[in-house]
Amino acid sequence: MTRPSAVPPPVTAVLDASSRWLPARLGEVEEGLRSAVASYGERLGADADATLAAGGKRLRPMLVLLCAGEPGGDASVRAATAIELIHMATLVHDDVLDEAPLRRGRPTVVASSGRERAVAAGDLLFSRAFGLLADAGDARAVALLSAAAVALARGELAQRHDAFNLSISERRYLDRCRLKTAALFECACRLGRDDDDLGAFGTEIGLAFQLLDDVLDVAGPPERTGKARGTDLLDGTITLPLIEAASSDPGIREVDLQALDPATATAICDRIAATGALDRVRARALEMVASAKRRLDGAQFKPEQRQLLGLVADGVVQRYS
Amino acid sequence: MTRPSAVPPPVTAVLDASSRWLPARLGEVEEGLRSAVASYGERLGADADATLAAGGKRLRPMLVLLCAGEPGGDASVRAATAIELIHMATLVHDDVLDEAPLRRGRPTVVASSGRERAVAAGDLLFSRAFGLLADAGDARAVALLSAAAVALARGELAQRHDAFNLSISERRYLDRCRLKTAALFECACRLGRDDDDLGAFGTEIGLAFQLLDDVLDVAGPPERTGKARGTDLLDGTITLPLIEAASSDPGIREVDLQALDPATATAICDRIAATGALDRVRARALEMVASAKRRLDGAQFKPEQRQLLGLVADGVVQRYS
Repeated sequence: MTRPSAVPPPVTAVLDASSRWLPARLGEVEEGLRSAVASYGERLGADADATLAAGGKRLRPMLVLLCAGEPGGDASVRAATAIELIHMATLVHDDVLDEAPLRRGRPTVVASSGRERAVAAGDLLFSRAFGLLADAGDARAVALLSAAAVALARGELAQRHDAFNLSISERRYLDRCRLKTAALFECACRLGRDDDDLGAFGTEIGLAFQLLDDVLDVAGPPERTGKARGTDLLDGTITLPLIEAASSDPGIREVDLQALDPATATAICDRIAATGALDRVRARALEMVASAKRRLDGAQFKPEQRQLLGLVADGVVQRYS
Repeated sequence: MTRPSAVPPPVTAVLDASSRWLPARLGEVEEGLRSAVASYGERLGADADATLAAGGKRLRPMLVLLCAGEPGGDASVRAATAIELIHMATLVHDDVLDEAPLRRGRPTVVASSGRERAVAAGDLLFSRAFGLLADAGDARAVALLSAAAVALARGELAQRHDAFNLSISERRYLDRCRLKTAALFECACRLGRDDDDLGAFGTEIGLAFQLLDDVLDVAGPPERTGKARGTDLLDGTITLPLIEAASSDPGIREVDLQALDPATATAICDRIAATGALDRVRARALEMVASAKRRLDGAQFKPEQRQLLGLVADGVVQRYS
């Protein structure tokens, strides 16, 4: 089977199980991403290339393509490319906010090129995403994607608003995850095919993805995650593992997050783990994935589509197993 | 005549000369801006309100409405609102880049709420702009606006790339102005009516606008501009007044911009002014405005439309007279 070289290993299971059309389309998405950031000259090429080359799992494009199925054609490739451009734009901007030095083991745009270029590069990726869809006359796709992009920004604002506030509720945390992460997964599915079951599937695996990400920040190990344990704590981001741990070890709420150093953050991670909170949050994420897969039982889904979307859902879990 | 209270004095001449439909539509744009940023709860409401309340001349919305004319209807109001949202988004992001404390005499979002919220608030305004047009199914407008937004980001990147480089050419400066400023003016006109003469009109008054802005940074006075003289120099932004001054006083190119303090920046402003460069740049901007107005001589423009667009062009100059 031909496989686009830029597609990273985690999607292998899906590609191996799929008919030939999927790897071909994913290859077109990679081409589309490259040409969307190409020809801007200056150093932007280098910045954008670095972001592209850092890769990622292309989970969102894969969801678009799989939900659209083989009949999705060029429209699904464009939508898959656009949603990854929005995702890349938010990564570049998030790194500005976090002043992150590394992403996926490579220097971030903000670290290598400065805040100024990173903000503008993110804006450019944003605008290209909408332009790509609009040039093809697809106002419905622009509407879906802009609503998701609004949700992302609101999620980011909510996270900043709640920073260092140890009393936020589980509900508020889940609302933030819906905005910050699940909305784009839902959008990916609906861009492929605007179906409520597919939308709910996307929301649930998006939530599971975020919960497991938050577990990973506490559990590490750094050599696999590429970042120190407790990074969220140091940023003041309150996540479900901490909320869950505090229900059996309320003393955790007494920590002064504003005065945290990396060593203490690691110690708090150990304390969270000691409560069993990580297993409980993992179990909830797994239940969300199982629920998401049940959404695919409807008669409107063909066996191959159900199988491949199921593998993507499993992939969300497996990256942490 | 009724006049929306939020419309600031510089547009008075246009409103006084216009039929009743224009002020009514501008009022709808103000409403649209308010509702586009409303209902996001949290502190965003306050941030966005502050940006809205700081106002501005609403030049770009006015261009959309005037180019569309009375038959433009609701579509022109939506496009006018969307382009101002993009403009506001770039102002919020520019202030992040510049770490600007004030804009139009009020604290910026970045100063009052921090870099994190300002980046996300800008992203939100961006996304809302595209969503507004897409919800109405207007893919053509999304395509025009996203191309202009790409140009803005490229202009910003070019400016950062050229920072502190005293050898940049006039041509490179003008290219940057086209991307950074004129593209959005051109887009405003084309959103109203996709006509090459109107597009060229927008480009020329946009360029004149930027040239005069750059003169003002050197000329001051601070009590009218709301910022210290020589702010561009301190940021390392090389503008036409400096390029022009160096042609008669080459020693200006020897200045070490990286080591500049505000007092020295003011002294360099005086030195630029002493060469007569400011008058020469002003004269070029006026010629651009005159050329722009000649674009309106075609038979396709009605007398009222020609008169009102001419007043907008004059307004670009008058804010500096």
